[in-house]
Amino acid sequence: MQFEALAQQYKTPLYVYDFDGITSQYEALKNAFKARKSLICYAVKANSNLSVIRHLAQLGSGCDCVSIGEVKRALKAGVPPYKIIFSGVGKRDEEIKEALECGILMLNLESEAEMYRVETIATSLGEVARISIRVNPNIDPKTHPYISTGLHENKFGVDLDTAKRLYIHAKHSAALDPVGIHFHIGSQITELEPFYEAAKVVSDLVRNLKALDIELKFFDVGGGLGIKYSEEETINPYNYAQVILNTLKGLDVTLVCEPGRFLVGNCGYFLTRVLYEKTNAGKRFVVVDGAMNDLIRPSLYQAYHHVELLDGKGEETPADIVGPVCESGDFFAKNIMLPLTQHNDVLVIHSAGAYGFTMSSNYNTRGRAAEVAVEAGQSRLIRVREDFETMIALEEACL
Amino acid sequence: MQFEALAQQYKTPLYVYDFDGITSQYEALKNAFKARKSLICYAVKANSNLSVIRHLAQLGSGCDCVSIGEVKRALKAGVPPYKIIFSGVGKRDEEIKEALECGILMLNLESEAEMYRVETIATSLGEVARISIRVNPNIDPKTHPYISTGLHENKFGVDLDTAKRLYIHAKHSAALDPVGIHFHIGSQITELEPFYEAAKVVSDLVRNLKALDIELKFFDVGGGLGIKYSEEETINPYNYAQVILNTLKGLDVTLVCEPGRFLVGNCGYFLTRVLYEKTNAGKRFVVVDGAMNDLIRPSLYQAYHHVELLDGKGEETPADIVGPVCESGDFFAKNIMLPLTQHNDVLVIHSAGAYGFTMSSNYNTRGRAAEVAVEAGQSRLIRVREDFETMIALEEACL
Ligand SMILES: Cc1ncc(COP(=O)(O)O)c(C=O)c1O
Ligand SMILES: Cc1ncc(COP(=O)(O)O)c(C=O)c1O
Repeated sequence: MQFEALAQQYKTPLYVYDFDGITSQYEALKNAFKARKSLICYAVKANSNLSVIRHLAQLGSGCDCVSIGEVKRALKAGVPPYKIIFSGVGKRDEEIKEALECGILMLNLESEAEMYRVETIATSLGEVARISIRVNPNIDPKTHPYISTGLHENKFGVDLDTAKRLYIHAKHSAALDPVGIHFHIGSQITELEPFYEAAKVVSDLVRNLKALDIELKFFDVGGGLGIKYSEEETINPYNYAQVILNTLKGLDVTLVCEPGRFLVGNCGYFLTRVLYEKTNAGKRFVVVDGAMNDLIRPSLYQAYHHVELLDGKGEETPADIVGPVCESGDFFAKNIMLPLTQHNDVLVIHSAGAYGFTMSSNYNTRGRAAEVAVEAGQSRLIRVREDFETMIALEEACL
Repeated sequence: MQFEALAQQYKTPLYVYDFDGITSQYEALKNAFKARKSLICYAVKANSNLSVIRHLAQLGSGCDCVSIGEVKRALKAGVPPYKIIFSGVGKRDEEIKEALECGILMLNLESEAEMYRVETIATSLGEVARISIRVNPNIDPKTHPYISTGLHENKFGVDLDTAKRLYIHAKHSAALDPVGIHFHIGSQITELEPFYEAAKVVSDLVRNLKALDIELKFFDVGGGLGIKYSEEETINPYNYAQVILNTLKGLDVTLVCEPGRFLVGNCGYFLTRVLYEKTNAGKRFVVVDGAMNDLIRPSLYQAYHHVELLDGKGEETPADIVGPVCESGDFFAKNIMLPLTQHNDVLVIHSAGAYGFTMSSNYNTRGRAAEVAVEAGQSRLIRVREDFETMIALEEACL
C-alpha cells in the first residue's frame, strides 16, 4: 500500500481501506459455509461508509443493521431489502414502522415488550412482520466486558424459555411470522468453543420448536469472529463454519452470519503525521495529528493497534503515541519501540477498519477524517474530509 | 425546568441547557476573583455550541481553545480575538498560521519543538507571536487518570527548568513575545490543595523570571474546578480564588482562568424516553432511546450521572439504564433504584452540560441529538437534530 503517497494526496489524518482485502475476507467466509445455503449479512456498525457497504453488496452480501439509519444506508448502497436484517435492543416506534414498510428480511427481536410493539405496529399497518428472536445462550465469549453480549446478566436477547414462549405467541399472531432465530455472544472472539456451545444450545431449541410445528428458516449465528491485532491466535473461517454446521444436522435452515470486524477490521489503516516529539520527565511522547476523536478504541477498550513508522530507521526507544486532544486518555499506543521521528513523518495505525471511523466524533471541534478506498491499485475518496462550515451548520442555523 | 414539555416539543434524545444557571456560575467565579484584574476564558471543549459560547461572551467571557476550529467558533460567537487563548499539545502548522493571523491574545505552548515551529511560522508571516508556556508542575490532582494532566509522566506542558529555558529563548527572539504562563493539572478536581500547590510552584517561577527581566502579564491557572455529580464535596469558588490569589502577592499579573465543566456541567440535562423494560436472569434493564453515542462519559470514564424518572411513582427496584447500541458498554447508569417505567416515560440524565454533546458521535448511524437553551423561562433550539441526509452527505458525494 502506498501510504506515503496517499497521505500526500489526501492529507492526514486519513482512513484507508483495502477493498481487495475485504473481498478476500468475504470470499473466505462465504466459501467456508458452502456446504449449506448461507447469507452473509455484513454488520454495518463496524464500518458504515456507503462505498464499503456497496462493495460488499456487489459481492453478494446482505446487511445486519441496528438502526433505521443503518437500514437506509444499506438500501442506498444497493443491498436488496430481502437481505437486510434489523437487530438491536432498542428500536423506536418509527424505526419499526419504516423497517416494516421497506419489506426487509426480518426484524430481530430482543425482548417480550418489543415483540408486542412490533405486533401492534404491524397490525396497524396491516402488515405481517417477519421476525427472529435473539436468544441469549448464557455463554462466556472470553472477550472485553464491553463487547461481551452472550451472558445472561446483560441487556441482550432473551433466555431460552422466554424465547420458546415468544415463538408460540408469534406463531398464533396474525401480525407476526417467526422465520428465524438469532444469537450473538460478543465481538473479537478468538476461540471456537463459545461458538460451538452457543450454536448447539440454540439449534436444540430449533429442534424443540420444530416439534411444536414452528419451522424456522434462518439460523443466524451473529458476528464476533476475532481478528489479529497483535499476537492473538485467531479462528480459521473453515473451522468456524464446521463447528456451526455440525450443530445443524437434520435441520433445513439457511445459515445467516453477521460478521463486522472480520470483514473490514484488518483491511483498514489510519494514517497520521507526526507534529512534534517531546520528552517529559524522561518519558518520550510522539504527538501526532490524529486523536481519540478519530479512533477511540485504545482509550475506550484499551485496544492494541500496531503502529508503523514509514521509513523509520535508527535506534528504537520506547514512546507513547498521543494526539492533540486535551486528555491523558488521548493515545494510540503506549510504551512501544519506535525510531526517532521527524515533523511530518507518517505513522500507520493498523487494524483500524472496524469500529474506527464509525465511532469518531467532533470532540475539540476536530473535523472527521477523510476516507479512501484502494482497489486494484487505484485509490479514490469515499468520504470528504469534514470542514468547519459542515461542523457548525446545524448550530449556525439557530444562532 | 419543564422537562416533559421540552421532550414533547423538541423530541428525544435531547440536550437542554439552563442559560440562567450558566450566568450564575460565571458571575460567582468572576466575583471571586474581583480583588485582581481577571479574565475568564471559557474552555470551549466542554460544550462548544455556538449559542453557549455567545451567551458566555455576552457576559464578558473569553475562550480557551484547543483547535483552530474552536478558535473559529469563539470568533463566530462574538468573542473578541484579544480574549482568545489557543492551547493544546499538538497544533498543526496551518492552525498556528491561522491563529497568528487572527491576532488572538496568546498561543499557549506545550513543548520546545512547538516553540520553534511557532517561531518559524511567525517569522515567515512577519508577525510577533504572543505566547505563554504551559508548565507541568508535577502535582497529583487526584482525579480520573484520563483527565489528570498535571503529573510529569504525561504529555502535557514542560517541566520548570525547561520552561525557564524556553522563556529565555523567547525573550531574545524577534518573533516571540512571552506574555503569559499557564498550567492546568486536571479536570473534575474537588480539593483545594492541588490548586494551591500548583499555583505556588508556578508563581515562584514567575518571580524567578522577573529577576531575569522577563515580565509576564498573564497568569493562567487553567480549568479543572469540579462539580457535584453525586455526593462529592466540591470547592467553593471564593476559596478557590483566595488560595490562588494568595500565591500572587507582589506580582502585577492578570489572572486568567479556563473553566469548562464548572460553567456548564450542572446546567445541562440529557432527556431520553423509555423504549422498553426487560428482565434478563432476574436483572432489570430499562432500554431508552439515548445511547453511548450521545453521552459517552459513563462508558469512557465510568462517570456517575444522576438519573431522574419524571412523575415516577411506586416501588423502586434496582435497574440498569441502557441504550440501543449493540455494546454492553452502552449504559447511562448501573444498579440504580427506579420505579417501574412505561413506554415513552421521560428520564432526565443530570449534569450532562459538559463533555456531553461535544463527545457525541454517529455510532450505529444515530443522528446526533438536538440542543435547546432555556433562558428566563423561554426555550429555543440551538442545534437542529441531525438527520439521515446530513449524516451521509460527505459520503454520498463520493458514491
Ligand atoms: C447483533 C450483532 N451482530 C453482529 C455484530 C458484529 O460483530 P463483529 O464485528 O464482532 O463481527 C455485532 C457487534 O456488536 C452485533 O451486536
Ligand atoms: C488546558 C485546559 N484548560 C481548561 C480545561 C477545562 O477543564 P475543566 O472542564 O475541568 O474546567 C481543560 C480540560 O481538559 C484543559 O485541558
